[in-house]
Amino acid sequence: MASTAEDFETPNSLRDICGLDLVEKNDLDDEMATFVHGIEKKYGFVPNFLRMWASDNRRLRAFLVPWLELMRTDSGLSPLDHELIALVCANENGCAYCCAHHGATLRGVSGDPVFAELIGRNYKLAELSSRDRAMLDFVVMVQKEPEAIGDTERDCLRAKGFDDEAIWYIASTAAFYASANRMSAAVGLKITPEYLTMHR
Amino acid sequence: MASTAEDFETPNSLRDICGLDLVEKNDLDDEMATFVHGIEKKYGFVPNFLRMWASDNRRLRAFLVPWLELMRTDSGLSPLDHELIALVCANENGCAYCCAHHGATLRGVSGDPVFAELIGRNYKLAELSSRDRAMLDFVVMVQKEPEAIGDTERDCLRAKGFDDEAIWYIASTAAFYASANRMSAAVGLKITPEYLTMHR
Amino acid sequence: MASTAEDFETPNSLRDICGLDLVEKNDLDDEMATFVHGIEKKYGFVPNFLRMWASDNRRLRAFLVPWLELMRTDSGLSPLDHELIALVCANENGCAYCCAHHGATLRGVSGDPVFAELIGRNYKLAELSSRDRAMLDFVVMVQKEPEAIGDTERDCLRAKGFDDEAIWYIASTAAFYASANRMSAAVGLKITPEYLTMHR
Amino acid sequence: MASTAEDFETPNSLRDICGLDLVEKNDLDDEMATFVHGIEKKYGFVPNFLRMWASDNRRLRAFLVPWLELMRTDSGLSPLDHELIALVCANENGCAYCCAHHGATLRGVSGDPVFAELIGRNYKLAELSSRDRAMLDFVVMVQKEPEAIGDTERDCLRAKGFDDEAIWYIASTAAFYASANRMSAAVGLKITPEYLTMHR
Amino acid sequence: MASTAEDFETPNSLRDICGLDLVEKNDLDDEMATFVHGIEKKYGFVPNFLRMWASDNRRLRAFLVPWLELMRTDSGLSPLDHELIALVCANENGCAYCCAHHGATLRGVSGDPVFAELIGRNYKLAELSSRDRAMLDFVVMVQKEPEAIGDTERDCLRAKGFDDEAIWYIASTAAFYASANRMSAAVGLKITPEYLTMHR
Amino acid sequence: MASTAEDFETPNSLRDICGLDLVEKNDLDDEMATFVHGIEKKYGFVPNFLRMWASDNRRLRAFLVPWLELMRTDSGLSPLDHELIALVCANENGCAYCCAHHGATLRGVSGDPVFAELIGRNYKLAELSSRDRAMLDFVVMVQKEPEAIGDTERDCLRAKGFDDEAIWYIASTAAFYASANRMSAAVGLKITPEYLTMHR
Repeated sequence: MASTAEDFETPNSLRDICGLDLVEKNDLDDEMATFVHGIEKKYGFVPNFLRMWASDNRRLRAFLVPWLELMRTDSGLSPLDHELIALVCANENGCAYCCAHHGATLRGVSGDPVFAELIGRNYKLAELSSRDRAMLDFVVMVQKEPEAIGDTERDCLRAKGFDDEAIWYIASTAAFYASANRMSAAVGLKITPEYLTMHR
Repeated sequence: MASTAEDFETPNSLRDICGLDLVEKNDLDDEMATFVHGIEKKYGFVPNFLRMWASDNRRLRAFLVPWLELMRTDSGLSPLDHELIALVCANENGCAYCCAHHGATLRGVSGDPVFAELIGRNYKLAELSSRDRAMLDFVVMVQKEPEAIGDTERDCLRAKGFDDEAIWYIASTAAFYASANRMSAAVGLKITPEYLTMHR
Repeated sequence: MASTAEDFETPNSLRDICGLDLVEKNDLDDEMATFVHGIEKKYGFVPNFLRMWASDNRRLRAFLVPWLELMRTDSGLSPLDHELIALVCANENGCAYCCAHHGATLRGVSGDPVFAELIGRNYKLAELSSRDRAMLDFVVMVQKEPEAIGDTERDCLRAKGFDDEAIWYIASTAAFYASANRMSAAVGLKITPEYLTMHR
Repeated sequence: MASTAEDFETPNSLRDICGLDLVEKNDLDDEMATFVHGIEKKYGFVPNFLRMWASDNRRLRAFLVPWLELMRTDSGLSPLDHELIALVCANENGCAYCCAHHGATLRGVSGDPVFAELIGRNYKLAELSSRDRAMLDFVVMVQKEPEAIGDTERDCLRAKGFDDEAIWYIASTAAFYASANRMSAAVGLKITPEYLTMHR
Repeated sequence: MASTAEDFETPNSLRDICGLDLVEKNDLDDEMATFVHGIEKKYGFVPNFLRMWASDNRRLRAFLVPWLELMRTDSGLSPLDHELIALVCANENGCAYCCAHHGATLRGVSGDPVFAELIGRNYKLAELSSRDRAMLDFVVMVQKEPEAIGDTERDCLRAKGFDDEAIWYIASTAAFYASANRMSAAVGLKITPEYLTMHR
Repeated sequence: MASTAEDFETPNSLRDICGLDLVEKNDLDDEMATFVHGIEKKYGFVPNFLRMWASDNRRLRAFLVPWLELMRTDSGLSPLDHELIALVCANENGCAYCCAHHGATLRGVSGDPVFAELIGRNYKLAELSSRDRAMLDFVVMVQKEPEAIGDTERDCLRAKGFDDEAIWYIASTAAFYASANRMSAAVGLKITPEYLTMHR
């Protein structure tokens, strides 16, 4: 079931959705192609970031393997936790693409568009448990002043009930989006319009 | 050839080398164990970051797969390019661990400790080709103001001879270290002392 | 036609929509009451900022008089210009309320939700004429480094065809929102939910 | 008693006192003209900011209406409070014109030139009651990080005896000068020399 | 002619003029005592900074020797240049004491209080030759981003006619005040009131 | 024993070790020449900073007199304290030359290269007594936000056992390096390679 160009090609070329003229290798293996088809089925469209990374099988795998590691069920973080972190990172890093994407997914997971709007603009204004607030405060430190993190900051998370494995995954998720947000910006990825109306 | 604890266990436990008390699962598969042994053989020691990530097979894989993608031979970047980017990122992000690590590896690749010192403190002071300087200026933007990157910045790289695939890998390498630098800081990874005398 | 509490009272009290427990004086004069009714009729609801300022007749007048001055037809700026400036200011100043409000109004004026999303996140990514880009670059300077503005910056606007009266109104609009964005944040004004679905 | 050009025209034209070549409409209505004459009588000169805004009746009104609202006697703030806030804002926003203006007025209200100098440079060094210090700390947040203001910050003011109406006026005064300081800078308003020797 | 406490003791003790309770050793040698008397004669008072440093002979000498080196007649800089640099540094570093001191001395050297006010608030607004502007731009870089200085910046000074010895003294003067401004702040030196009315 | 050019001339000229083409006056008096020879004897080489300052006798004296004042035995600070402060300043101010120099000297004084590496990158990660940490926190404030220092900060030092004379010398040392770090950067001083291997 190796992918072919037609499978999820949309009328526009890669150059129309990002600032780089990348070669589309059409070399996805079954696992990667299945993943892309799964997203397309779930969302009803192939998001631009996925089209871009799917231009090369190794490239997509290098994106998905660490992302799937964050999705493991024993991470100590819920899907809502993941989306909270992802959207706060997108906003802190000024990534318009990721704000649109994770704004949509957080609306979906939380079922609360006003809450998602606040998380995507200024999480300090949102109603959050003290656990979630501590988690997001740590995430902001990872983005903005990682060099200032020490035992004090990790102990704050422990005091809210996170064990050390969960702290690892909070840090990993924040670090993953520090990378993904920058990558979207650096390559000039254009917003997928469908995000803006999803789960409104 | 699955790994066991004794294989690369050193006297200290994980808690001695980082700020988290992670479970060591001793579950490395052959591919991951071979990688760790290879590094140990090459360096003469297992660096702390590797001991930490090797605590869980999926965790290590999630680190290595994207790193190996950056190492691909058709990326348009040389090993020296990679180390230049890695060390500039470490310094920009204030990561003491990564400065020590990539300071050592850049001394190895470049054979020039004074040059490596300048790159690790202030690359503007180093003698660099205009190609390399443009590459590192872009890398700093990826770290510090990704939201300001546009066609102008990508065109600067093109003007220095980088094709769009190479620009992808410059961006990817910078984004990878934006993540790795933050992860080291967030989990309180301690410096591997051997780095400091390597390639002096 | 002086206003009474019932006129535009909604079930929640002022304390529910902002962080201050302000007295509602119910003292709007005819001109102010007419304005509030007009907005309610146009939007289908009374936005929270208006309910808050309408708590006192002098307060509302102090907000409306300078805003109406910006609306004058001989300012040299179009309604689209006004909304571009307003949304860029809201984003620069991190005002969640104003981003929601002017995100909605810019979607209305421009008819382009993707464009409005980019303006509200990172106008550098939007397709803009060089005139509009110069206008917004100036607006960002007014917000972030007003002390650096000099003849050079004003001449950039003149070179794009703005006369000195129009430059006054660009500056005035930017300065007005420097104030309004801070006021919303300082008093803890809560987002009006209706904004989020307007003109999607 | 409509104003005419000769009434408060000084030898220099508007272009001599600011960076814009604005039309002087000489259209002040009685209320506005009376205000300008009142200031001239009180100060012995017409300050440059007033000459600039008085170039158009609507413009001047849009400045004075919100300023007069801040001057209301039931705001909970004294004239000294107002000038403290105004000078701290001018300094925080780097507005040379407003530092000169409110340096002079604070010297007048406080009768203490050394105190006024400290407020205009670094209020942390001045002898202030804990009430006044809390007020100015809040004002600095309004200028520099309004997005970080929450209930905690408003409660700090309440703990010092400010009621919610007074907090509104602290916020409003700070927001007014966030606008006025930027406007002076953006239009290149030149210092009125008389300020420098007033109340020395 | 060794100094004694009475020579320039004023009613208040050192603790009244700064935040440290330093021992007054009354051990000035003839050279240092002559210097202090000279300043007292010239100004009509002993400035607080001098009283503080004169508490110990070695301390005063450690301040004066580098300052006198900057005063050498073959430095390529005039007294006006020196005061321009000193006041810009004081403002950039937020030192209230030094702003008052060098505000006074620049009024004296330049004979122009409005000019001195602008230099002490925002030199970009002052009328300056392109030579002086280049000198002050360099000085600001020395204060705020010394790590970004390279041949390009030094060549800008050369292009304005400064030889390399003069560049040394521009840098030295800026560096001297980077130190002096911080010292005044760190020890809590109080403003000498006489500065505020000098040369008005 | 006046110095001559041959005494410590190395093959390269001043232009090879810094960004300025300074005149070498060869005018060192006995005291200065003895100092230079002493350093050469102690280190085995003349560091670049010393060669540069020794180009003129007054220049060198202006550097040494304040430095020797910091070295006085009754300052309340040990040589280790001095080097801790010096290296933290060098890192905070981004001075590559001073990081290399004081990295070497701190390795010498402390005998611990890993400790010195952490101090030179991020002292928050080093194991420090609470006294030393308080001292370095104060030093960072002197570098980065001197205007925020008040009695609270000085009292923190007193609470750790520093008397007011010692606080003077902590401040003086930090201020001295605020100057020295900027001077090295401003004149483009090149790293002395020998530092990098000293005390490894």
